[in-house]
Amino acid sequence: MASSKKLILLLVLAFLSFEAVVSAVVTPLQFPHPLDPLTKEEITTVQTIVRTKYPTSKNSLTFHYIGLDDPDKTSVLTWEHSMPGAITIPRKSFAIVIINGETHEILIDLTPKIILSDKIHTGHGFPTLSVEEQTAAILLPLSHEPFKESIKKRGLNLSEVVCSTFTVGWYGEDNSKRSLRVDCFMKETTVNIYVRPISELYILVDLDLMKIVEYHDRATRPVPTADNTDYRFSNQQPPFGPKQHSLASHQPQGPGFQIKGHSISWANWKFHIGFDSRAGVVLSLASIYDLEKHKSRRVMYRGFISELFVPYQDPSEDWYFKTFFDAGEFGFGLSTVSMQPNRDCPSHAQFLDVFVHTNDGSPSLLKNAICVFEQYGDIMWRHTETGIPNETILESRSEVNLIVRSVVTVGNYDNIIDWQFKASGSIKPAIALSGILEIKPVEAKHKSEIKIDEHGTLVSANSVGIYHDHFYIYHLDLDIDGVENSFEQTSLKTVRVTDGSSKRKSYWTVETKTANTESDGKITIGMAPAELAVVNPNKKTAVGNDVGYRLIPGTTAHPLLTEDDYPQIRGAFTNHNVWVTPYNISQKWAGGLYVDQSRGEDTLAVWTQQNRNIKNTDIVLWHVVGIHHVPAQEDFPIMPLLSTGFELRPTNFFERNPVLKTLSPNDLTWPGCPK
Amino acid sequence: MASSKKLILLLVLAFLSFEAVVSAVVTPLQFPHPLDPLTKEEITTVQTIVRTKYPTSKNSLTFHYIGLDDPDKTSVLTWEHSMPGAITIPRKSFAIVIINGETHEILIDLTPKIILSDKIHTGHGFPTLSVEEQTAAILLPLSHEPFKESIKKRGLNLSEVVCSTFTVGWYGEDNSKRSLRVDCFMKETTVNIYVRPISELYILVDLDLMKIVEYHDRATRPVPTADNTDYRFSNQQPPFGPKQHSLASHQPQGPGFQIKGHSISWANWKFHIGFDSRAGVVLSLASIYDLEKHKSRRVMYRGFISELFVPYQDPSEDWYFKTFFDAGEFGFGLSTVSMQPNRDCPSHAQFLDVFVHTNDGSPSLLKNAICVFEQYGDIMWRHTETGIPNETILESRSEVNLIVRSVVTVGNYDNIIDWQFKASGSIKPAIALSGILEIKPVEAKHKSEIKIDEHGTLVSANSVGIYHDHFYIYHLDLDIDGVENSFEQTSLKTVRVTDGSSKRKSYWTVETKTANTESDGKITIGMAPAELAVVNPNKKTAVGNDVGYRLIPGTTAHPLLTEDDYPQIRGAFTNHNVWVTPYNISQKWAGGLYVDQSRGEDTLAVWTQQNRNIKNTDIVLWHVVGIHHVPAQEDFPIMPLLSTGFELRPTNFFERNPVLKTLSPNDLTWPGCPK
Repeated sequence: MASSKKLILLLVLAFLSFEAVVSAVVTPLQFPHPLDPLTKEEITTVQTIVRTKYPTSKNSLTFHYIGLDDPDKTSVLTWEHSMPGAITIPRKSFAIVIINGETHEILIDLTPKIILSDKIHTGHGFPTLSVEEQTAAILLPLSHEPFKESIKKRGLNLSEVVCSTFTVGWYGEDNSKRSLRVDCFMKETTVNIYVRPISELYILVDLDLMKIVEYHDRATRPVPTADNTDYRFSNQQPPFGPKQHSLASHQPQGPGFQIKGHSISWANWKFHIGFDSRAGVVLSLASIYDLEKHKSRRVMYRGFISELFVPYQDPSEDWYFKTFFDAGEFGFGLSTVSMQPNRDCPSHAQFLDVFVHTNDGSPSLLKNAICVFEQYGDIMWRHTETGIPNETILESRSEVNLIVRSVVTVGNYDNIIDWQFKASGSIKPAIALSGILEIKPVEAKHKSEIKIDEHGTLVSANSVGIYHDHFYIYHLDLDIDGVENSFEQTSLKTVRVTDGSSKRKSYWTVETKTANTESDGKITIGMAPAELAVVNPNKKTAVGNDVGYRLIPGTTAHPLLTEDDYPQIRGAFTNHNVWVTPYNISQKWAGGLYVDQSRGEDTLAVWTQQNRNIKNTDIVLWHVVGIHHVPAQEDFPIMPLLSTGFELRPTNFFERNPVLKTLSPNDLTWPGCPK
Repeated sequence: MASSKKLILLLVLAFLSFEAVVSAVVTPLQFPHPLDPLTKEEITTVQTIVRTKYPTSKNSLTFHYIGLDDPDKTSVLTWEHSMPGAITIPRKSFAIVIINGETHEILIDLTPKIILSDKIHTGHGFPTLSVEEQTAAILLPLSHEPFKESIKKRGLNLSEVVCSTFTVGWYGEDNSKRSLRVDCFMKETTVNIYVRPISELYILVDLDLMKIVEYHDRATRPVPTADNTDYRFSNQQPPFGPKQHSLASHQPQGPGFQIKGHSISWANWKFHIGFDSRAGVVLSLASIYDLEKHKSRRVMYRGFISELFVPYQDPSEDWYFKTFFDAGEFGFGLSTVSMQPNRDCPSHAQFLDVFVHTNDGSPSLLKNAICVFEQYGDIMWRHTETGIPNETILESRSEVNLIVRSVVTVGNYDNIIDWQFKASGSIKPAIALSGILEIKPVEAKHKSEIKIDEHGTLVSANSVGIYHDHFYIYHLDLDIDGVENSFEQTSLKTVRVTDGSSKRKSYWTVETKTANTESDGKITIGMAPAELAVVNPNKKTAVGNDVGYRLIPGTTAHPLLTEDDYPQIRGAFTNHNVWVTPYNISQKWAGGLYVDQSRGEDTLAVWTQQNRNIKNTDIVLWHVVGIHHVPAQEDFPIMPLLSTGFELRPTNFFERNPVLKTLSPNDLTWPGCPK
């Protein structure tokens, strides 16, 4: 580039750098919305109120959940359609606090600052673990003499040992105590701890006592080498590559979306981005503007990932219990991590910060927890018409999509959680996996030395990546153009022509059935071809079709554990790919409210045994996205993204293509001037 | 924006506009490659040679196919690894020419310019239709008196009638003649002809005679209204919306790829982009550079869409025959259309032009037939490590992918065909559908008036969108690190723990079977959980795994026609989602070489009845991507993209994550200056 060009660029940079910084990270203004997550001040209020009733001088308190208590849905919908300020919805918080060993469910009205109820949970299962108790637990082995002996015996350096916590599950025992298994790893010369386990140690921590209550050292196996395991760029040796070229991008009109508080408007969509320490990102009140009807029409009251079940498939002593419920046990919100600008999200993304709570009830800021950006490069619709003599028609509309992204890192795995919105009406939730495999050390350096089922792939010398699954279950409270909806299954059926009325011998047609009760809503995808839709039976299009949204599944997987196996009883919500339930304010968590050491008594599978009516009522669609994971060497030492997702697509929701009259962006030549 | 900023921007624009234009459309230099599509001159050579043997003064000649005759694979591989110029591969062309009513297969050596062979096809089926004979056929009704009567009787304006051609298929008849059905439409006040059919007319054209040989007018049904059917922006009325904001983008280092002739190199990939009048885009010799082994390793010798089967599901007289084979009958290459910069491809895309042939054998330039661009915004891999006390690690690599895009428009439908390459080794072919539904006129303006199965959805008043399928079959000649490959099915099997050795009652493990013969390679996806891979059994990773690539399917669909139905006999390659065959230079077309009115004698289903060896030999993977299409009102009058695809993912192909040491792009602030 000529130096004169460089000079001009620097000048432009000087003029525009302020603008660039402003658009890079926008801290939202606070517009009150009844679904806004608890503010810093509100979290502090909860802490204060609980501590006032249970002074810490006399009581042991740990906060395991502090969140917005879901306001009454009808009230929220009334609020949405009222003049600002006309209706006030009480701000309430629901908190789960272990006080002196008992689990309290405390409901607080945040305005008068009073406790509305305070109940003790007496059933099975324990609350979501706090980050702080895990941090305490992983330090215990380092001062536990038998453990220090084990480390010494192995010839390892204790100062290079780092431990990690693992939930213990439930395997039929009558009595459960809040406890964790702790596994330890070597961080010597690598930060990739998960691939360097110190195996054959059994460390059980009692969380209430916060001490090691069981310890065994069964055998000595070598720790796999640290070679080629560090993933930090600073620790790589040449040759580097491949190289990527930069893309400079700029939106001269600014982004196409506006964020006010937690409310976002973009193209024809508006919705609310909430956040919860258990669920992570929660999208609510998603409505799309109908250009023909001149009004916004609701599509989804609420959508979030309710649970993530990750059962490992090694029945051995070190592994059998590794059947994690990442949302319920560890908290998707508590495990949400800060994203890196220009890496996790493109340079034109805007970030939202959130507050979570610590286990003493204090608010804790998480920067860059959510990013929102527009994605370019696809086509919205097109047609080239060459069939009309003497006329050539090429109409093509480029597509701009909106992405809401967050990353949930539970220990080794990073879950990239995207919600894509399309102006054509589709919502495409996507899941991508990255991060690190859980590794079992083995003697073998080569596959030929493995004579028994090691329950995984030899991904590196002495390192087996254990088989496992990832089952994400989405809670999708669709409200298709209103609250009362039905679930329809449109089966595709072969018809044989037997009367000689056609030269064809067969064709297919459709047969639509409306689900009456929950048992009709349990769908195993792949059994028979069918379209699945949530419709509003009370609203028809002009030509008489039920307005609806269709679920187009992506990867589906069915559980391979037997139904009577303990982890599968707890994760029974994976028994079908689709479930439909009547809306129930307390049925948010597919694996139950108390998942740690749960016994499967409060799962979606249990609720639906009531076989409630789901016809023409407020319903929730649950969808399980499953991945069976047979590790590969490419997943080691860190895994390139493995992506999947699904689509919620308008199907006779609009009278016609809702983006027929879309206004495409102006054509620009760099650096952003109209042609 | 301050006016001083504007001035600066204009200055920058002036300095850089030349650069911008150059990077927008690059006409490739010609570097000879044995797989390059025929040049303009070579097509003319074929025309000249054939006309010399068969002078047009004495013979009737129509060229139905002119293409590169596939060079011997072994020779191409030798050529690839030789010094430039060391080996010359003869340039040959294969042409299918109908001469005086007989179908000639003519093989020509382009260097000495001689005919090597000239055979007459005597079997069933006819060659791909030419564009010109279809153009002639659609004009016939306009001067056919009975047709003019029919139009008059309906009160329609003949000058607003436009017709379109439809292949007739085969329905068990003994004798077939080259013929087409012609349907006509009203273009009055809309260019969306497909939604305004003039129904109940039966028009059969004999293509050799080029005349209407059968004509019936069965009844009069109204033509659906033109209201709301035009999709051209110029014909829309306000309100417009939604509005998209522009994105100005610039790659200061230029694109990350280089195109020399038809060879492309990008990141760690190199491959060849060919083009064929039947197949459309053909990707060949795709190899990825292995940073650890310091060499390029081949993944795919050749990949293209071999056929697209679109059976409609209405058995009535006007519809039963509509069971199209878009590649074999109409030519994916002949149907490839020019793309619109900034709409079909982003502004930083580069375009390639191609030559196709006309039916007199002349070359014809198609501008902007293929675009190549880099796509930003995803994550390549990431991890946030919070488990190491006093250390926070956030490593994230942004992803840049490469897309090769073309659009095939066969009549009403537009097929957007993407090949995505990832530096992490994956190839993700994707298909998206847009364009226009085929509409059957009905009396009903409302669903409640429909009392019989109309075989479709009432998408607008008087307009039924007929049920149909889209089955794309990919020919994927994978060469995983060499030519000799095997196909492995790794089944996931539940194991019940019965000996009390674990607290678990079950787990899953894998069982890998290598396919011996073609019958082992026929896979119906969804029957049982399994990973499908093409491996090189002669190459192992350091730890002993077979190097391989895995097929991760997207949407799969199974045919719903009965196996004995004529269209299904012809489209029997859809009977399984995956097939594996030994490489055979002549087995490229899953529906046969001559598909028009074929009888299913030359399909993949027939070839594989030989049950040939597919173990440790040169094999081809065939994958069917299927979509059952129940039309929705949103698909009318033009359809927003419906997308699907699959992934070919390295699985123990590399020793470890091949992008661990990737060099991320520099962080830029707009307008493209390093931070």
